[in-house]
Amino acid sequence: MSVNHETNKEQALYERACNVLPGGVSRNIIYRKPHPHYVARAQGCYVEDLNGVKRIDFVNNIASLIHGHAHPAIVEAVYAQMQKGTAMAIGTEAEIRHAEHFISRVPGFEKIRFVNSGTEAVMAMIRTARAFTGKYKIAKAEGAYHGSYDFAEVSQSAGPSNWGELDSPNSVAHTLNTPPSVLNDVVVFPYNDVERTIAILDRYAGEIACVLIDPVPQRIGMMRATPEFVEAVYQWTRKNNALMAFDEVVCFRVDYEGAQAAYSVKPDLTSLGKIIGGGFPVGALAGKTEIMEVMNPSHSPLPFPLSGTFSANPISMTAGRVAMELFNRDAVNQVNDLAAVAKKQLKEAANEAGIPLCITGDGSMFKMHFKEQPPRHYRENVDNDMMKKAVSTFLEFMYDEGVILVYSNGCFMNTVMGQTEVDKLSEAALKGFRHIRPLLNV
Amino acid sequence: MSVNHETNKEQALYERACNVLPGGVSRNIIYRKPHPHYVARAQGCYVEDLNGVKRIDFVNNIASLIHGHAHPAIVEAVYAQMQKGTAMAIGTEAEIRHAEHFISRVPGFEKIRFVNSGTEAVMAMIRTARAFTGKYKIAKAEGAYHGSYDFAEVSQSAGPSNWGELDSPNSVAHTLNTPPSVLNDVVVFPYNDVERTIAILDRYAGEIACVLIDPVPQRIGMMRATPEFVEAVYQWTRKNNALMAFDEVVCFRVDYEGAQAAYSVKPDLTSLGKIIGGGFPVGALAGKTEIMEVMNPSHSPLPFPLSGTFSANPISMTAGRVAMELFNRDAVNQVNDLAAVAKKQLKEAANEAGIPLCITGDGSMFKMHFKEQPPRHYRENVDNDMMKKAVSTFLEFMYDEGVILVYSNGCFMNTVMGQTEVDKLSEAALKGFRHIRPLLNV
Repeated sequence: MSVNHETNKEQALYERACNVLPGGVSRNIIYRKPHPHYVARAQGCYVEDLNGVKRIDFVNNIASLIHGHAHPAIVEAVYAQMQKGTAMAIGTEAEIRHAEHFISRVPGFEKIRFVNSGTEAVMAMIRTARAFTGKYKIAKAEGAYHGSYDFAEVSQSAGPSNWGELDSPNSVAHTLNTPPSVLNDVVVFPYNDVERTIAILDRYAGEIACVLIDPVPQRIGMMRATPEFVEAVYQWTRKNNALMAFDEVVCFRVDYEGAQAAYSVKPDLTSLGKIIGGGFPVGALAGKTEIMEVMNPSHSPLPFPLSGTFSANPISMTAGRVAMELFNRDAVNQVNDLAAVAKKQLKEAANEAGIPLCITGDGSMFKMHFKEQPPRHYRENVDNDMMKKAVSTFLEFMYDEGVILVYSNGCFMNTVMGQTEVDKLSEAALKGFRHIRPLLNV
Repeated sequence: MSVNHETNKEQALYERACNVLPGGVSRNIIYRKPHPHYVARAQGCYVEDLNGVKRIDFVNNIASLIHGHAHPAIVEAVYAQMQKGTAMAIGTEAEIRHAEHFISRVPGFEKIRFVNSGTEAVMAMIRTARAFTGKYKIAKAEGAYHGSYDFAEVSQSAGPSNWGELDSPNSVAHTLNTPPSVLNDVVVFPYNDVERTIAILDRYAGEIACVLIDPVPQRIGMMRATPEFVEAVYQWTRKNNALMAFDEVVCFRVDYEGAQAAYSVKPDLTSLGKIIGGGFPVGALAGKTEIMEVMNPSHSPLPFPLSGTFSANPISMTAGRVAMELFNRDAVNQVNDLAAVAKKQLKEAANEAGIPLCITGDGSMFKMHFKEQPPRHYRENVDNDMMKKAVSTFLEFMYDEGVILVYSNGCFMNTVMGQTEVDKLSEAALKGFRHIRPLLNV
């Protein structure tokens, strides 16, 4: 499938955008040269561009659509709710029903609070941990993405020039002129490295409110946190009056009970977002009753008085509930099985094309690495210029072949995909792998 | 209009809610004893409870619905967009159109960036100011509400026991265990007090990135910032390499070009939210191109790499654009004129009932004070126990009469209200004023 790449309409739209938006975009993810791509309509697993060309969308708004675009059951449920109002400063049953779903779904979720985005969810999680423990610092893995709260984004983009020793990674500002006090309140550790992480945490024992972990972190090579690592962090937090806080905004999709299902120890708090809004803006914080009580407005003084105009609005709650009910155990297994087939076919294609390929990730999300061995931590996941060129060339080639992959060279699958889409993926990838082989020095 | 107040259904729903949400709510605003109120459907200016009782809604989701609930033009536009997708990691024309509207609407808006909430908008504004100026501190008015970002919420709820001298207000934590470094990076001044404010700012000259002002602040008595105050702050920021940053999340509704239309000097940055999403989650940051460039992803390194999964999603953008196009100059004038009639009738009712009443606010939003003179700053706006009791009694009485007012004893009007609703408001208020007269010691 070769797609004729007519860009004049996109160029024209981008020029309008540049007059009104900084750099012409509101999401950096869509930025590219010479201009972003634009979508006219999106349905199921396909997006259609301004010229009517359809492509398979393996991005799904960066992991946030578990049933693809415009799922009819969600559209109709939202349409019905819209006619009864989209937002009010009075309670609705919609938030209660969505909350009940999660509390019955995940054993470790005793209470849940909804907010408007993953960024707000992680911010609320960190502030809850501070309010509950009486401590100020957080610890996070070097390179991990946790949204746009200053404290959460520290060292997300650290590089060889500033990251320091692996035994003691620097707290590196992601945003220019981040207050030094913010950097000082964030402790950075190397992901999945039990010995170094515990040694680093020990240095700040008594000061850490929570240890933040994304157990399938996209920006750290999408390697699963090892059970040993999670167990070690958990035991450390028990000894040091700190909380273990999981960021499952992206990775909740990997299992019916989220990524935490894989571990014998469970987080005290979990932040959620993406798929739980059914395609509408959402975030949430779930965890133990004892801890979540800091947000209970019946307390005076209220430890953490978190407000939010659109939090738990009945549109996001209705869309999210329908989406999550549809994402039952059968649906989870089905999309995860399909992802396993996709990974197998991609490896076969790589073999046939004669390039190295390993695939990380879990469940319905995975990431391709054009190398024999997956990275072990963030520093090994930072691509050199040769690899960056190979990946960007591959992604552009795939786009022209009608397959849209995630910028980090991966896929977030959805439940409305089938063998047809997986075959198109692996067929296009075979061509793509051959196309980039000369760039890989193999 | 007396409404029979059947609460069993609400009690039952609240009991379910308490099992799954801390305190049974996701928005503290809906919390009340013995239980929150719940809405079955909301249309136009009316909300209907679980028993089918309709009440006029002067809250409009805390100022966020300028056309009331479920406006048909918005519902249909969103339904059409929903079938073409609700969120994607590819550009859409929807965000460009909405951005173009604002850039042509407000002279001081050269570029705009969309986010997901007012909280995110103010956070982005502060971080933009830091990135641009190279300084870390922000200055804000004591008592002002600016969302749930740590730095923005400092001293929002300061009280006599901790607020210190008016010449030098303390930075008071709103959330338990806010890091001391956060408090240290927030300078607090008394609103509308030129002399004290400039003296305080001078003490931190060279350290302040931006001075944050809500020019019609609900929690500071909803008094307009005086032209002298705004002019003095503006001149101070010019001399001290700082930005003047307006929070118009709530008050943009007061004029076609926002509350800033009233001043000869304009803010460098403005945060927006509420009505600009047409009833769907939204926030935005608008301002000068030179400053907004810190978010332009074509720069490397990018000063402020702000991301957001649902930012500028085509649902919020479509609903918001339709809402703002309908909120043209005629509509602004019409709803503001209606609010003027409402204020006049309420004052007449207060006269008739023999209670003191002054009304602050501007445009379509106003707040009632049961006293002869409005407060001048936050400390005068903090009610004593007698006044708290009078206000809460009045609000409950009005609810039972079928009129829902804002918790701070005010109204956010919408464009689908007419003389009928205003008459119901003033008729109920007359009864309410008589009801609470004994509580006021007049």
